[in-house]
Amino acid sequence: MVFTQRLREVQIKQNSLLCIGLDVDAERIPQHLQSLANPVLEFNRQIVEATSDLVCAYKPNLAFYEAMGERGLSVLRETLKLIPKSVLTIGDGKRGDIGNTAERYAKSLFNDFGFDSVTVNPYMGFDSIEPFLSDPEKGVFILALTSNSGSKDFQRLKVGTKPLYEKVVHTAKKWDKDHNIGLVVGATHPKELQRLRKIVPDMPILIPGIGKQGGDLKSAIRYGCDKHGQLAIINASRSIIYASSGKDFANAARAEAKKMVEEMKMYIG
Amino acid sequence: MVFTQRLREVQIKQNSLLCIGLDVDAERIPQHLQSLANPVLEFNRQIVEATSDLVCAYKPNLAFYEAMGERGLSVLRETLKLIPKSVLTIGDGKRGDIGNTAERYAKSLFNDFGFDSVTVNPYMGFDSIEPFLSDPEKGVFILALTSNSGSKDFQRLKVGTKPLYEKVVHTAKKWDKDHNIGLVVGATHPKELQRLRKIVPDMPILIPGIGKQGGDLKSAIRYGCDKHGQLAIINASRSIIYASSGKDFANAARAEAKKMVEEMKMYIG
Repeated sequence: MVFTQRLREVQIKQNSLLCIGLDVDAERIPQHLQSLANPVLEFNRQIVEATSDLVCAYKPNLAFYEAMGERGLSVLRETLKLIPKSVLTIGDGKRGDIGNTAERYAKSLFNDFGFDSVTVNPYMGFDSIEPFLSDPEKGVFILALTSNSGSKDFQRLKVGTKPLYEKVVHTAKKWDKDHNIGLVVGATHPKELQRLRKIVPDMPILIPGIGKQGGDLKSAIRYGCDKHGQLAIINASRSIIYASSGKDFANAARAEAKKMVEEMKMYIG
Repeated sequence: MVFTQRLREVQIKQNSLLCIGLDVDAERIPQHLQSLANPVLEFNRQIVEATSDLVCAYKPNLAFYEAMGERGLSVLRETLKLIPKSVLTIGDGKRGDIGNTAERYAKSLFNDFGFDSVTVNPYMGFDSIEPFLSDPEKGVFILALTSNSGSKDFQRLKVGTKPLYEKVVHTAKKWDKDHNIGLVVGATHPKELQRLRKIVPDMPILIPGIGKQGGDLKSAIRYGCDKHGQLAIINASRSIIYASSGKDFANAARAEAKKMVEEMKMYIG
């Protein structure tokens, strides 16, 4: 089944558009876990157990695991094994390199780690993205308009009459022969999200930037969903996984996730 | 000492602009090494020993090591220890992410692995690059016009009257308060290299794409060097490290590296 369809089915079954970003910082793990052999893995285990019925996806950002070196990659690998098959995984590495190198990244993320989908950077063009596209079941989220302040530096530059990020979206649509391409559009840009959804009515959109970064959940849902109230993936990381820094962190994460899911349902209507 | 000055001094002392890309594919390691406990590390050891007096830098592309999982990161770490301090290292990962995440990548590459410099992708703008800039001794090569065919897809789009890659170069120049920013410009674009060198007369330019990718060494030197015949870093990977697939691979790599260095001297002088 092609990735976009897989996402639809997961979102229906789980009745959720929520994605939890597993961006775990070893220093922010609750005190009572610090003495364990593998605090980050235990933290992830409890977060996943407490929330996996509430989400459509988990998104580990690779930087947080690479920052722990070899051990971090093992923690990532073990974390992925804890995630039920009913939920999708997004390897958030924003990779991009020339064709023969991009192949290595694709092999590592899809075959070795077994991610269902990844994020990629469009700057280097088609041959940097093509190796990720070969399996239609695996999803590829291309950065379009990112949630951070630096998104204005290049993404918003006008190419002819349209901003660069919109050109990226039109190009991504052209490349999407197998219905396995998605976009990344920050919740911090609601108006642009609304316009982009019209350009790609059937494409998954991964929407980070809710919470700490200031994005608004209501607009993310209203403007990011397709006509069936699907295909928007609302990511929240720190606001959920660090909802409490105490022994109740997993319950607190669940409560925060649940609150977001309920709020989303209200906005979908 | 700021990175640009470090590069100048290394290039003078080593009398070389050559960078060898340590993009090692486990499957292309010569047969006689395959039975060793760590074939890739032994391959790198012999390549470095045979060539370290001929180069100004080594550039491992992270994808090739990540493709080997946890073990690959260890091989990378051990490889970096084999490289003499007289030569610079470039961690070629083309990373780019929001500020708090980019910090993790910077910490991993500069502090944990100890690279002297890295490559980064500009698409996400200033806050994605800023965390890499905090130590003026460490270099940051920003992708401008890459050597691959996909470089035409977005990098060459006109922003106003100028192509996007040129806008990236002007912006990089503005960001370069501490003389530790460089550019990546493919040897496959000699005319553009010539124009860009005029915009940034004092900035390091990492130039991949010689050899297999079709770039021409003469133009890379003529157009890539500053007025002192420095600051161009000419990268070659496969043409050197796979010059022979037999037992003589290290000698063959040395011979190929030496040939390139001699040719470069001819073009400079």
